[in-house]
Amino acid sequence: MYSFKNDYSEGCHPSLLKALADANFDQQAGYGEDVYSEAARKLICEKIENHQVKISFVSGGTQANALVIASALRPYESVISAETGHINVHEAGAIEATGHKIESVPTHDGKLRPEDVHSVLQKFEDHHMTKPRLVYISNTTEVGSIYSKSELEQLYQYCQQHDLYVFMDGARLGSALCAKDNDVTLADIARWTDVFYIGGTKNGALAGEALVLKNESLQKDFDFHLKQRGALLSKGRFLGIQFQTLFENDLYFDLARHANAMAMKMALAFQEKGYTFLTEPVSNQLFPILPNEVIEKLLQSYGFYIWKKIDNYQSAVRLVTSWATPEDMVEQFISDLKSL
Amino acid sequence: MYSFKNDYSEGCHPSLLKALADANFDQQAGYGEDVYSEAARKLICEKIENHQVKISFVSGGTQANALVIASALRPYESVISAETGHINVHEAGAIEATGHKIESVPTHDGKLRPEDVHSVLQKFEDHHMTKPRLVYISNTTEVGSIYSKSELEQLYQYCQQHDLYVFMDGARLGSALCAKDNDVTLADIARWTDVFYIGGTKNGALAGEALVLKNESLQKDFDFHLKQRGALLSKGRFLGIQFQTLFENDLYFDLARHANAMAMKMALAFQEKGYTFLTEPVSNQLFPILPNEVIEKLLQSYGFYIWKKIDNYQSAVRLVTSWATPEDMVEQFISDLKSL
Amino acid sequence: MYSFKNDYSEGCHPSLLKALADANFDQQAGYGEDVYSEAARKLICEKIENHQVKISFVSGGTQANALVIASALRPYESVISAETGHINVHEAGAIEATGHKIESVPTHDGKLRPEDVHSVLQKFEDHHMTKPRLVYISNTTEVGSIYSKSELEQLYQYCQQHDLYVFMDGARLGSALCAKDNDVTLADIARWTDVFYIGGTKNGALAGEALVLKNESLQKDFDFHLKQRGALLSKGRFLGIQFQTLFENDLYFDLARHANAMAMKMALAFQEKGYTFLTEPVSNQLFPILPNEVIEKLLQSYGFYIWKKIDNYQSAVRLVTSWATPEDMVEQFISDLKSL
Amino acid sequence: MYSFKNDYSEGCHPSLLKALADANFDQQAGYGEDVYSEAARKLICEKIENHQVKISFVSGGTQANALVIASALRPYESVISAETGHINVHEAGAIEATGHKIESVPTHDGKLRPEDVHSVLQKFEDHHMTKPRLVYISNTTEVGSIYSKSELEQLYQYCQQHDLYVFMDGARLGSALCAKDNDVTLADIARWTDVFYIGGTKNGALAGEALVLKNESLQKDFDFHLKQRGALLSKGRFLGIQFQTLFENDLYFDLARHANAMAMKMALAFQEKGYTFLTEPVSNQLFPILPNEVIEKLLQSYGFYIWKKIDNYQSAVRLVTSWATPEDMVEQFISDLKSL
Repeated sequence: MYSFKNDYSEGCHPSLLKALADANFDQQAGYGEDVYSEAARKLICEKIENHQVKISFVSGGTQANALVIASALRPYESVISAETGHINVHEAGAIEATGHKIESVPTHDGKLRPEDVHSVLQKFEDHHMTKPRLVYISNTTEVGSIYSKSELEQLYQYCQQHDLYVFMDGARLGSALCAKDNDVTLADIARWTDVFYIGGTKNGALAGEALVLKNESLQKDFDFHLKQRGALLSKGRFLGIQFQTLFENDLYFDLARHANAMAMKMALAFQEKGYTFLTEPVSNQLFPILPNEVIEKLLQSYGFYIWKKIDNYQSAVRLVTSWATPEDMVEQFISDLKSL
Repeated sequence: MYSFKNDYSEGCHPSLLKALADANFDQQAGYGEDVYSEAARKLICEKIENHQVKISFVSGGTQANALVIASALRPYESVISAETGHINVHEAGAIEATGHKIESVPTHDGKLRPEDVHSVLQKFEDHHMTKPRLVYISNTTEVGSIYSKSELEQLYQYCQQHDLYVFMDGARLGSALCAKDNDVTLADIARWTDVFYIGGTKNGALAGEALVLKNESLQKDFDFHLKQRGALLSKGRFLGIQFQTLFENDLYFDLARHANAMAMKMALAFQEKGYTFLTEPVSNQLFPILPNEVIEKLLQSYGFYIWKKIDNYQSAVRLVTSWATPEDMVEQFISDLKSL
Repeated sequence: MYSFKNDYSEGCHPSLLKALADANFDQQAGYGEDVYSEAARKLICEKIENHQVKISFVSGGTQANALVIASALRPYESVISAETGHINVHEAGAIEATGHKIESVPTHDGKLRPEDVHSVLQKFEDHHMTKPRLVYISNTTEVGSIYSKSELEQLYQYCQQHDLYVFMDGARLGSALCAKDNDVTLADIARWTDVFYIGGTKNGALAGEALVLKNESLQKDFDFHLKQRGALLSKGRFLGIQFQTLFENDLYFDLARHANAMAMKMALAFQEKGYTFLTEPVSNQLFPILPNEVIEKLLQSYGFYIWKKIDNYQSAVRLVTSWATPEDMVEQFISDLKSL
Repeated sequence: MYSFKNDYSEGCHPSLLKALADANFDQQAGYGEDVYSEAARKLICEKIENHQVKISFVSGGTQANALVIASALRPYESVISAETGHINVHEAGAIEATGHKIESVPTHDGKLRPEDVHSVLQKFEDHHMTKPRLVYISNTTEVGSIYSKSELEQLYQYCQQHDLYVFMDGARLGSALCAKDNDVTLADIARWTDVFYIGGTKNGALAGEALVLKNESLQKDFDFHLKQRGALLSKGRFLGIQFQTLFENDLYFDLARHANAMAMKMALAFQEKGYTFLTEPVSNQLFPILPNEVIEKLLQSYGFYIWKKIDNYQSAVRLVTSWATPEDMVEQFISDLKSL
C-alpha cells in the first residue's frame, strides 16, 4: 500500500541528515544565532535579491501563520482570506486565538484577486467593525493552483494603495515556483508581498519554514513575538542547517521539480483515460474526478483522500506527490490505472 | 574556546541521528500518529508505570508551558510560580499572552513548598481577584536544585486538598532524576504531579519535550490545543523517533548521568580550591562563587555566564555541562582552575 | 427633524429616573449585591418561572455577548451565528478578541434553524478545526424578524442532542415578545435557551441588559468573568433599580408594545401606498422598499438609514420606533407619506 | 448602622439626576457623539488647558484600565505597577486577560518613583523577557496617598527618557486634587502623564470615568478598542450629561472637597485620641490603627473594613468618606469615638 495522501509521509532528504550529522558536535549559539542559520539566511537573501529582510526559521506552518498575523496587527484589525484558506479551515482557530477576525471570501480557485479584497473593503463602515489590514494568500493554494506574476503584482499594488499587508503562506512554495506555466521567481515573491514563508516541511525538511519579513515595520521586535509564541527553538541550528542545505546548489528547487514531475505524469495518465479535474493540475496536488468504482479499486493499492463528492457516480479525489515519491511507484500507479 | 554556557550548544546524540536515518523513507501518518511516536509513548508509559496518561511530543519548553497552562485553566484562573520560575522571567510573557496571571513567590532555592503555595492562597479574597488553580514547578529548578520524593509528595497532597493542579517543567528532568542524592523516579513524578514534561532538547535531542498528561481532566480535547497553538508538527515522527531512541535501553538516563558526572567533577575541583556555591551543586548546572580575577582568567579559555554579583570582589557564575561535554575538556578545565 | 434612526436616541422612561431619585441616598452594597438588584432578579425569576437561574446586570450588548461567549467556551470552541448576526458584523471583532472563531451561516431572514446549524456541524472533521459549541441567535433579529415557539423549541432540542449551547441576544427582546403573531413568552425563552439577555437599553433604560444564565454549567464562577471583563459596576444598584422598575407592573412590556404599535401603524401606511418590505414588518424595525424620490423627500423631515440598494430606482430603508416615539409624530409621518 | 465602607454606597449627586431628567426626551446621536458628551469634553479640555486630547467616557475603572493598557501595548510589552496597584490585585486578572504581564514593585506608600521604575528596567535583558512600556500609577493611591507636582514631573521625565508611557488611574482623582497639601492641578496631570482618567463613579456620578488620551499615538483608532471591549455605550449621552454637570461650576471639586473635609474631621478625632495611621491621612480614605476593642465597639454602629492586622491587640481599619457623607453622621461618629 503506497500513500499519495500527502507530502509529509517520509523524513527528510538524505543530504539534510548528512548536514545535521556533519555539524553535530560543533558548539553553536542558541536561538537561531548560529553560523548555519546565518549562512542559510544569506543564501535566501541572495535568491530573493534583497538583503534588507529579516529571516526567522520556525517549526511549522500554523505557527508561522499565527506569528505573522498576530505580530502584524493591532487588536481590532482583521485578515482577509479565501474561504478555503488554511488559516480559515484547518488551523483550529489559531488566528482567532490571537484575537483577530478572518474575513473570508468565496473563490472558485482558492486565489484572491483585487476584486475579492475590494468586496471586503466595501463592506467596511466604521469602528463598529473590524478594520481589514492584512491579506493572506497561499501559493500553491489549498486546491493546488498558483499565482502568476501579474496576479501577484496587481494584488500587491492594490493592497499598497489600500494600506493592506500581503502575506503569502508558502507551505508549498517550492511546488508553486516549479509548477507548470509558473512565471514567478522567489525574488518576485519578495517583491510582491510584505512577508512570506518558504516551506521546508513539505519539501524535503524534517520540519522548518523560513519566514521572510520584508516590510520593515513588520521586522521591529519580531524576536519578542517568536519567543512569546514558543517558536524560538533553543537548538535553532537544526532548522538553519536544513535550510542551508536546501538552498545550497538549489536542492530546494530540484526536490520541488521532482514532486511536480511525478504529479504531471499522473495527471497525463488521468487525462488520457478521459478524466477531468476539479482544478487544473499544475503542481504536486492533483484533484481528478473519478468514477466511484475506479476510486474503490485504486484504494485497494494506494492511499489517498476523497476530496469532494461530485454526484452519485463520481467524486474528486486528492493525490499528492513529494520529493520522496519514487518514479517506479508512479509508473506502477499509471499502469494500474490504465488497466482499470 | 570551549563553552559551558548551556546544555544546548551541540546537535543530538548520534543514536538519534541514526534512528532518523533508518526510518527516513518509511511512510507514516502525520501529526504524531506514526508508529515511532506510538512506540515512544509505550516506552514512557512503562517507565512511569502508568498507561492511562496522554503523551504528546512538542518542540520546545516555552511552547509546552504555555500549552499546558492555557489548556488547564479557565480565563480567570492563575498560576503560582517561584519568582525565579522560567515562565515568570524568561518566556517573554508567554503565559500572560494566553490570558493568565502568574502569582509569583520569592524562594531561597527556586523550589515551592506547601507553605509558599499557602501564602498565595491566603491572600485570595473573592471574584475581584484571580483564582489560583495550578502550581508550576521546575525540576531541576532554574538554579540547579532538585525536589526530593517527600517534598513532591507533600506538595502534591497539599495541592490535591486545595483543588490545585501540579505541573512540573522538566526541561532538565533527566539531570534531576540522575542528580546527587536524588530519591525520585520517573514513576514518582507521574504519581506526584498532574502533568509534567520530559525534556529532550537539553538531554540529547535536536528538539522535543514529551508532555505527559496524567490527570484525566487535562487530557480532554488536548489535541485541539496542540493544533491551535501551532505545536502539532506534521512530521511528528521526527519527535517520536528521537524519544523512542532515548527511552530504549535507558539512553536518556545515561546521557543525564554523564552530564551530571561532568558537573560533579568540576564542583569537586571548585570545592578543593575552597570556593563556595550560590546553590548546592547537585545537577548539571553549577553556580560557584569566584573571585573576579579567577573569572576573568577562566573566561579567556571557556565560555560561561556571570550569574550574579556578590560583592566588589566576587561573583557567582553559571557553568553548565551536558550529554555532549567531553571528559577531557572537563579535565582541562580543572587543571586550568587548579593552576590559577 | 424627527429621527427614526434607532431606539436609543432618548434617555429613559421617566419612571426609571424617579426610582433612581427615590433610592438615591439609600446606602447599599456595591457590585450588584444591593437590595434593588435582588428585587429585580426576583421579579425576573417569577416572569420566567424559574428560580434556579443566575441573573447579572451589565451595561451593554457587546459586553454581554463577549462575556457569555468567552465564559462558556474552551479556547478551541467556536460559535455558530447567522451571517447577519450582530456579533459577526457590528461588534468590532469583540468575540474573536476573546479568542473564538465565529462560524457564520447565510440565512434569508436572519434566523438560524436546525438545518443551518447542521450545515456547520457537517463540515467539522477533527482537531484541525474549531469545535462548534454555542449557537448565537438574536430575537428580534438584526432584520426585525422573530422566532416562533416551535422554532425555538426545535432549535434547542437539536442543540441539546448535539452538545451545543443556545444563547439568545435579547437586545430587542421586548419588541420580539410583543411582536405581531408572536407566540413566545419570557418563560419560553428561558425554557428553550441555555442563556439569554433581556435588553434594557433599547426598551426604556439608560443602560442595562439583564443576563439570565439558566444552564448551571454556565453559572459557575461567572462573577470572576464579570469582574475580569470590566462589567461589574461598583454602583450596580443603578442597573438593578432600572430593571426593578421595568419589571414591576410589566412596564417593560407596555413600552415594547407601544414601540411595536407605532411601527405597525407606519407599516400599514406603507402597505396602503403599495410598498413592499425587505422583511415582513412585525416588530419595531421596518424595512420598506421605497422609490428613491420618496426616500429623498422623507429625509427632508425625518432621520433614518438607507439599508440596501435594491436597484437604480428604489432602496430598502430602515425605520425604528421606540418606547419614546410620540404617536403624533407617527401620524405626521404617515400624513407626509400619503401626500407624496 | 451607617457605612464608611466605601465611596460608592449611594446613587449620584442630585444635580446629575436633574440634568438627566432635563435632557431626557432630547433626541441625540448614540455612542458618545451627542451634544452633552461634546460639551463635557469641552469643559474638561478647558480645565486641563489642552484641546488636543481625545476624551472618551466609559462606565468603570477596571474597564478603563484594561482598555488603556491593551490599546497602548504591543503583545510582548508589559506594565510596571506598584505591588498594591489596583490592576495588580483587585481586577481579577483583567490586564493579563488582554495578554500583558504586570511587573510589580513593592513600595512603602503605594507610589512609584523613578527609582522603582528603574529597578524593573535594570532586570530587562532581551527578547526572552517582556519589554516594559507603560507605567501605571493611581492618584490617590490604593492606600490614600497622593503624588506631589514634583514627583509627577520627575516620574514623567524619567519615563519620557526611557520610552515609557505614564498612565494615571484617577478613580479617586477628585479626592487627590483636593487633598491636604496637594499642589497638583488637573492641568498638571495632563502635563505629566500620557493618559489618565477622571473618576466619576466615586465622586458623585452613577457611573462613569472620563478617559483623557493626551499622547497622540494613543489616540489613533481608539474608538475601535472602545467598541471591541464593550465600552461604547449606545446611550453614551448618559455619561456625557453627568460629566457636563460635574464640570459646570466645578461641582466635581466641591464634592471631592466635601469628602476630604469629612475625612479630615475624623482624622483629627483619631489623632486627638492618640491613634496613629498606617498611611498619613490626606484624602477621603483613612487607615487609623485602633485597639481591637475600639474596633469592635465602633463596628456595632458603623460599617467599615479591617484592613490589616498590626499585632494581637490592634489593627488598621479603612474608613472612607464621600460626597454623600452627611456632616452630622461624622459628628456622631466622632462623639462616639470620644466616648470610648
